Amino acid sequence: MTVPRQAQEPLRVAMIGHGFMGAAHSQGWRVAPRFFDLPLEPVLQTVVGRNADSTAAAAAKWGWRESATDWREVIARDDIDVVDVVTPGDTHAEIAIAALAAGKHVLCEKPLANSVAEARAMADAAATAAASGIRSMVGFTYRRVPAATFAKQLVADGRIGEVRQVRAEYLQDWLMDPESPMTWRLDKKLAGSGALGDIGAHAVDLTEYITGQHVETVSGIIETLVADRPLPGAGENESLSLSKSGTASTERGTVTVDDIALFTGRLSSGALASFEASRFRTGRKNALRIEISGTRGALAFDLERLNELEYYDATAPDTELGFRRILVTESAHPYLAPWWPTGHMLGYEHGFSHQVADFVTAVHDGRAPQPSFADGLHVQQVLDAVERSSAAGSAWIPTAG
Amino acid sequence: MTVPRQAQEPLRVAMIGHGFMGAAHSQGWRVAPRFFDLPLEPVLQTVVGRNADSTAAAAAKWGWRESATDWREVIARDDIDVVDVVTPGDTHAEIAIAALAAGKHVLCEKPLANSVAEARAMADAAATAAASGIRSMVGFTYRRVPAATFAKQLVADGRIGEVRQVRAEYLQDWLMDPESPMTWRLDKKLAGSGALGDIGAHAVDLTEYITGQHVETVSGIIETLVADRPLPGAGENESLSLSKSGTASTERGTVTVDDIALFTGRLSSGALASFEASRFRTGRKNALRIEISGTRGALAFDLERLNELEYYDATAPDTELGFRRILVTESAHPYLAPWWPTGHMLGYEHGFSHQVADFVTAVHDGRAPQPSFADGLHVQQVLDAVERSSAAGSAWIPTAG
Amino acid sequence: MTVPRQAQEPLRVAMIGHGFMGAAHSQGWRVAPRFFDLPLEPVLQTVVGRNADSTAAAAAKWGWRESATDWREVIARDDIDVVDVVTPGDTHAEIAIAALAAGKHVLCEKPLANSVAEARAMADAAATAAASGIRSMVGFTYRRVPAATFAKQLVADGRIGEVRQVRAEYLQDWLMDPESPMTWRLDKKLAGSGALGDIGAHAVDLTEYITGQHVETVSGIIETLVADRPLPGAGENESLSLSKSGTASTERGTVTVDDIALFTGRLSSGALASFEASRFRTGRKNALRIEISGTRGALAFDLERLNELEYYDATAPDTELGFRRILVTESAHPYLAPWWPTGHMLGYEHGFSHQVADFVTAVHDGRAPQPSFADGLHVQQVLDAVERSSAAGSAWIPTAG
Amino acid sequence: MTVPRQAQEPLRVAMIGHGFMGAAHSQGWRVAPRFFDLPLEPVLQTVVGRNADSTAAAAAKWGWRESATDWREVIARDDIDVVDVVTPGDTHAEIAIAALAAGKHVLCEKPLANSVAEARAMADAAATAAASGIRSMVGFTYRRVPAATFAKQLVADGRIGEVRQVRAEYLQDWLMDPESPMTWRLDKKLAGSGALGDIGAHAVDLTEYITGQHVETVSGIIETLVADRPLPGAGENESLSLSKSGTASTERGTVTVDDIALFTGRLSSGALASFEASRFRTGRKNALRIEISGTRGALAFDLERLNELEYYDATAPDTELGFRRILVTESAHPYLAPWWPTGHMLGYEHGFSHQVADFVTAVHDGRAPQPSFADGLHVQQVLDAVERSSAAGSAWIPTAG
Repeated sequence: MTVPRQAQEPLRVAMIGHGFMGAAHSQGWRVAPRFFDLPLEPVLQTVVGRNADSTAAAAAKWGWRESATDWREVIARDDIDVVDVVTPGDTHAEIAIAALAAGKHVLCEKPLANSVAEARAMADAAATAAASGIRSMVGFTYRRVPAATFAKQLVADGRIGEVRQVRAEYLQDWLMDPESPMTWRLDKKLAGSGALGDIGAHAVDLTEYITGQHVETVSGIIETLVADRPLPGAGENESLSLSKSGTASTERGTVTVDDIALFTGRLSSGALASFEASRFRTGRKNALRIEISGTRGALAFDLERLNELEYYDATAPDTELGFRRILVTESAHPYLAPWWPTGHMLGYEHGFSHQVADFVTAVHDGRAPQPSFADGLHVQQVLDAVERSSAAGSAWIPTAG
Repeated sequence: MTVPRQAQEPLRVAMIGHGFMGAAHSQGWRVAPRFFDLPLEPVLQTVVGRNADSTAAAAAKWGWRESATDWREVIARDDIDVVDVVTPGDTHAEIAIAALAAGKHVLCEKPLANSVAEARAMADAAATAAASGIRSMVGFTYRRVPAATFAKQLVADGRIGEVRQVRAEYLQDWLMDPESPMTWRLDKKLAGSGALGDIGAHAVDLTEYITGQHVETVSGIIETLVADRPLPGAGENESLSLSKSGTASTERGTVTVDDIALFTGRLSSGALASFEASRFRTGRKNALRIEISGTRGALAFDLERLNELEYYDATAPDTELGFRRILVTESAHPYLAPWWPTGHMLGYEHGFSHQVADFVTAVHDGRAPQPSFADGLHVQQVLDAVERSSAAGSAWIPTAG
Repeated sequence: MTVPRQAQEPLRVAMIGHGFMGAAHSQGWRVAPRFFDLPLEPVLQTVVGRNADSTAAAAAKWGWRESATDWREVIARDDIDVVDVVTPGDTHAEIAIAALAAGKHVLCEKPLANSVAEARAMADAAATAAASGIRSMVGFTYRRVPAATFAKQLVADGRIGEVRQVRAEYLQDWLMDPESPMTWRLDKKLAGSGALGDIGAHAVDLTEYITGQHVETVSGIIETLVADRPLPGAGENESLSLSKSGTASTERGTVTVDDIALFTGRLSSGALASFEASRFRTGRKNALRIEISGTRGALAFDLERLNELEYYDATAPDTELGFRRILVTESAHPYLAPWWPTGHMLGYEHGFSHQVADFVTAVHDGRAPQPSFADGLHVQQVLDAVERSSAAGSAWIPTAG
Repeated sequence: MTVPRQAQEPLRVAMIGHGFMGAAHSQGWRVAPRFFDLPLEPVLQTVVGRNADSTAAAAAKWGWRESATDWREVIARDDIDVVDVVTPGDTHAEIAIAALAAGKHVLCEKPLANSVAEARAMADAAATAAASGIRSMVGFTYRRVPAATFAKQLVADGRIGEVRQVRAEYLQDWLMDPESPMTWRLDKKLAGSGALGDIGAHAVDLTEYITGQHVETVSGIIETLVADRPLPGAGENESLSLSKSGTASTERGTVTVDDIALFTGRLSSGALASFEASRFRTGRKNALRIEISGTRGALAFDLERLNELEYYDATAPDTELGFRRILVTESAHPYLAPWWPTGHMLGYEHGFSHQVADFVTAVHDGRAPQPSFADGLHVQQVLDAVERSSAAGSAWIPTAG
């Protein structure tokens, strides 16, 4: 029996950019409909990049139907429903605003933009587009790691009581070698900021998501530990990878972003949250960790053990108190039902399938997906306030206004 | 630019069976070519199952081109290159032997068969087919969890010296509720054995794979803890899931397989290995653990933390001895290069992509993929010897002959 | 104000032996009354050893009033109330039986004896003495690690339901170097057995203590991995320490005890327990671990993290299942109230204070302390049955009779 | 043979105060000479407290020869060599300065004082006394947890290269219940500060000790989460315990100290260190944790697992990188040789024996013990700078001058 065409309408996607994030997004678009019952069928229509050859190669590699080099042409096409933006942050605003204006739903990687002004323009454009039923979403995928989603549920259900304190950190060490070469991620013009925006943004978003609160004021410091680094060899393409390798030239480029960011924020409820983002925490590879202390319990999560959530129930008898290592692999856990049996692990890219599933469903149902561009703007405001606090001797700076 | 057809020749696959393992295999066939540079392009051609509707639904869900109900017809087709067998164990021998005879490469789920006789017939058929360039492989995918593959490399490189002792266990608890219903996995006719063959087989294979040695004699005991269980309700399909749920009927079926298996084996080198397979180890969901103690070091692996390998270097100074938690996510680790940056986790199904990559490459290169049907036969002989030892009051039984 | 004499009557102790265990027992006698309100005041009266000088040195070092070389004289003295036996196992029976006959309360290190016959004679002597109010106890101190005691309470309170399975192991690696020298612990005449009796005995006792059940039959194997070892240099005293050091002579002695013991036991309830004792588990220093799987929960303990107990409550909702790491440092936990505030750790020797506190209280109150010599005999019977099973090709051997 | 008097001269100690710290210090004085070869023999001469009965009871309980109520009389006695100050911080300066003036060696609990002015007076007095051979030391005992001492050695030996970043936290939760009663620890007049001085002081000292650097400037915030608490019932003694219990009265007292302190410091080398001290981190009982990231490696320590040190050697091959869990129980580790065999754990109070051993040896040898009163003053300056920074909107405040 030949498999019949599925009943679902297609949802045709153009992906702008094809670095490491392009691989992850492609996997999300490809895999989500194989596990989740989606109301629309994603079609991996076209990938857009500046270089025709490498873009075509990416399209072939990741299973997209076509490739293209002019994103403006692509977003003007009638046969594109969704624009998925995975370029470096300096181009997010222009592409996303144009796509929304062209009536395309937009999924945009984080951080939303490289500046508050850009992010605000994007949020405004998203609000305008929403009035016409056009959807937009920013890609804080770690919200969709099941353990993180479940953490939010536990907080919302009152299982840890009122939040007393938060510690959130995102620790890597891929820059610890001072001879590790320059990349676009170390150039403020392209990347906006360093550890702060690249990984600190996740720590902020996850804190706000799980607690349901905003960071309202911040005090902190950002710092660059290695001021210049060897430029990649002339013949090489700029690497997007986190690899330590790369042939160093004798010329050096100036690092214009932070290597570490340490800041304290006050949440809406008044509770204090302390944050750290660092690319110099030796031995920590991808440690996005958050611990939330409440009046009735606590939660701890570590992305390096992403299938686990530690939960402490302070209402247990004194002798039975303890952090419980929950394997978040039960079918009753968020996102888990379509996957594997209990105890079978998910990996990094599963969050991208969850993101696609939620985005496609929201588009179909005419609902606003989360996190919104307004959420992305808010995170940008927090990052901006941290930079201003650092410049002002760690003075407390409000994140709004 | 429309993406050009890829240069690779297609490798057209028919998958027989579509339970939970079908989902995992489908994901492997779909995803592997998106990350690995394969010399042949897998085509998800057809899924075969007994029930036309559910098979068609599975095909649509998982992205196969067609579905069918008669596996004999399918393996006779000229447009099928590979037969992927994911049915319960009682049908493996018949299907695989027929497929090999029809000149198809065969990938067969583990355990290879439900009896030594069947497994031996399959290994013989595989040997015969190999002479004609037909490839066969048994699906012990946990060999292809990068941490396990890396463990083998460390042993082969002499990093733990000579193996002194092995402890291997595979612990689950999904049967601990005595009212959890009957499934085909508890019926000896369909499943061959219980914990012993379902999960103990993995512990045996992983031990043999990592150490490079055979289990040559065994002494052990198998036991059924819950003798009968409620039959699933009349209107329900038999569930393949590990879920505890299911509406129980008032009728009960007899459990004819073991719930736990405890055995000791002697390896080729003379070292002792102790094994446990249990579906009653409360709180352990999918804990395939192996610890190998050597004259110069030790290794410990736990499938519930599959991105980690613990390594102990006994040649370190006394004050610096300790188990080291290696995140097996570096590009220099086995299978890791095409995936994500350091510190980004893989999940359960990545092993199936690795299996596809290795299988496809071996087929293309004209090499025998590992583990072979002969390897599968050997594991079956170990399982059989355990059962005979248990019946003989735990007497030591050789696994060969 | 001069501190007045305490109201308690003295309890005058003679300790026979002064190796590593002598240090631990001395610490127990010295420290217990400073934290626990004991009904009698222990007096560290005399230490007995074969060598006058080293015994006097030990007495001075550990704060005993005197030393002596003839244990028979000492146990005949009127001013001795308790005989504490910490010699190697081959002398336990003679000393303990004589001490009981002399009307002294006896605390005897484990294993109770080197043979079942000796142990039975001791248990008989203890029973006879008990009729005259003379108390005896065997030193399985790990029962008195608070986490282990608390584990027993949880089992007794039904918190894990009926025991389904037990895994108990005691893993060390101090013999992994084949050039590590001979010691009395490797001589069957002095030590009785190797890993089996030295550390496996603890695994058996702890299993029986926590579950409240007996090991009734066993099947297993014991094995010596290194057949001979260098004798210590002529001028050296035989070392009792676990240290790797020691100047090796060119002469070698024959190891007459087991290095590893692997066995399965059936408990009174019918549940299976699997045991391992090994001095060749590379990287494991003192890993006495026990995991008990029940119908309603599970417990896991590891002596290398002795202030922690992992508890799994299987009655929690599916999404909240998980092993909970309880810090057993609350004042409501067993033995904890007199020690430090929550979260302050106890160490190895605290168990010896707890042992003293329990022993002294039992002596004062006229109750039989636990574990009794009969308990020690039973453990000896298990060890003996394991040796006989090993000799009989792992046949199942009853532990009684 | 009666044990002869030991050759060592006595070192007669008077302990002022007898709360929880008195128990710990008593244990140190009692136990140290039984394991360490001390050049002087500590004599537990007298305990001093305000209440004659409770002081006499403490003396009897802990094995001191006498008790007294007037510390001035005691420090004037000729038969006292050492004054050990374990009172609340408000009395440290007066007692210690008087004792030094009386020619007594002084061991003073941390924090050295409740204010910088007091601490400076004490450091000055110590410097003056040192000229006459009088020794003084402040009791940051966590420096003497073997894993912490070993961490310092690794840093000093260059095993982690240059320090890049430090994270130090001391987390407890004993105040999380808002109805937990007032104690002297929550009264600024008696305690000086809250979490900051009680536990944050340890985090600061341990950072400075292990790195060998000073915190030179700080920016931070301190905060009180629960403003008032029930006063203990009229008839009760003020409790020094961390217990949650206590009968609450209806009257409430004002908490005048901080509950949490979050601050960032810049070390002498320019590296940033982030600190947290909190009594509201739900589920954390005594988690003094420090992680030091260097150019060649990293170290991580957690007081809740005080026998372990995690060490990451960044010079290992890429595939073998990982944090190594070192059991700091080898005889070659600091302080370990006189204790137990490998793998046998130490507990909280062992640090007090190490402190006594070091103090007594320094007194005998005529060397200045560490940490000095000057070190204690410096920590006090850090704490003071944190408080001033908090009052100044988290402005950066130098710790010196």
